[in-house]
Amino acid sequence: MLIESRNNKLIREILKLREKNYRDKSNQFIIEGKKFIDEIPPSWQINKIVVAQSFALAKNYANVFVLPDKLFTQIADTKHSQGILAICTKKKFCPDDFTLKENSLLVIAEKINDPGNLGTLIRSCAAFNVDGLIISKGSVDLYNSKVLRATAGNISKLNIAIDCDLETYLPKLKNNDVKIFAASGNAEKFCFDANFKSKCAIIVGNEANGISENILSQADEIIKIPMENKVESLNISTAASILLYEAWRQKYFL
Amino acid sequence: MLIESRNNKLIREILKLREKNYRDKSNQFIIEGKKFIDEIPPSWQINKIVVAQSFALAKNYANVFVLPDKLFTQIADTKHSQGILAICTKKKFCPDDFTLKENSLLVIAEKINDPGNLGTLIRSCAAFNVDGLIISKGSVDLYNSKVLRATAGNISKLNIAIDCDLETYLPKLKNNDVKIFAASGNAEKFCFDANFKSKCAIIVGNEANGISENILSQADEIIKIPMENKVESLNISTAASILLYEAWRQKYFL
Repeated sequence: MLIESRNNKLIREILKLREKNYRDKSNQFIIEGKKFIDEIPPSWQINKIVVAQSFALAKNYANVFVLPDKLFTQIADTKHSQGILAICTKKKFCPDDFTLKENSLLVIAEKINDPGNLGTLIRSCAAFNVDGLIISKGSVDLYNSKVLRATAGNISKLNIAIDCDLETYLPKLKNNDVKIFAASGNAEKFCFDANFKSKCAIIVGNEANGISENILSQADEIIKIPMENKVESLNISTAASILLYEAWRQKYFL
Repeated sequence: MLIESRNNKLIREILKLREKNYRDKSNQFIIEGKKFIDEIPPSWQINKIVVAQSFALAKNYANVFVLPDKLFTQIADTKHSQGILAICTKKKFCPDDFTLKENSLLVIAEKINDPGNLGTLIRSCAAFNVDGLIISKGSVDLYNSKVLRATAGNISKLNIAIDCDLETYLPKLKNNDVKIFAASGNAEKFCFDANFKSKCAIIVGNEANGISENILSQADEIIKIPMENKVESLNISTAASILLYEAWRQKYFL
């Protein structure tokens, strides 16, 4: 189906899906790029696939909406788009759905603001096989296009709960014998001296303000990554990834 | 000095400094934010400081150019600017200037494209006290405002050489007994089984294409970060930071 008018209903829907409000209302979001779309598992619902005319010609896609390249470029989010995007239904987990194993590893993100940071964190969580990423209320929207791009297509490889109330969720974790770690530059203990071998969760805080007092007070251990004093802190997704690496090294190689 | 016209020479210069071409021609660049400016050491040359009127009133800055807030917002790069920016002279190192110590740690970046990745890499290099970051020709401009923002003010805490020809530089490093590591998902050896205790350098490759064949063939050891197969790779600045953490752990804590 070739769509040539910018006033077409689908085009208007795609443009509206760039806004969080409409994503929430319609329970849908957009992903761009062939590899990203190919990697979406069957348990996720792809509603519509939209391609640029040049892409359709090259790939012989069936049952898709085709737009002239010029129109596609106007609605695509990426500058040098491949020419394919999909509208998907949002996936919503509840943190209580996560299955905890003997050596489970969870990540708890409190009010991450920057879309690149959240996306990179998701990519690392998937790489280190985290059993669940719990994202607090007040974080950047998971379905923001910049978040999705920074995940490098890995969003569907991870259990993610959003809009969570951490103050009620953390005590539940502790009741399930999950040890809660928080990183802070003021900690005494280095991360490699902590024991990540049993069930554990790593808290990551906001870029500017760190982990809030209420949440930090629920951590079982405050740890630090060794570094030079001249630098105040690492990027938060970098710091979380180093802790995930350290936990993984201990869990599977020590 | 209060400047109210958008046609003022300084305003035009600031806008031109948003473009790499003019930064190269004038040998200057812009940094934004009070903390960032305060942390620039005396060896770097700050040429002009420009503040928004509301900022000048609050901070009582002397000898600066003052703009009405509305005009400042138009020339600032950050959306919610503090109201202060500085024009600085570029700093240029040659990689041969770096002093190599017995346990030196260098990072070599080949064709990093994404400004956020380069900035985050610089932040991590400063945190792990890297003796030099060598950036190849064909990388994103070091003085791009997004790079500077992602460094979180740490650019002046690190020796950085730009526009380097890696093919001629790597043999020099090897002649100086620097062991060169490259990370690849196809490697057999895990990074924690490699020995980072002596002089070493870590190569980081382009986001899409990795490290080029010519450069990879000069590495002494190819290593991998342990992770799940379902994920193709980590973000490049994340991967480099994990290797820096591992090198630092071995150098100073084993």
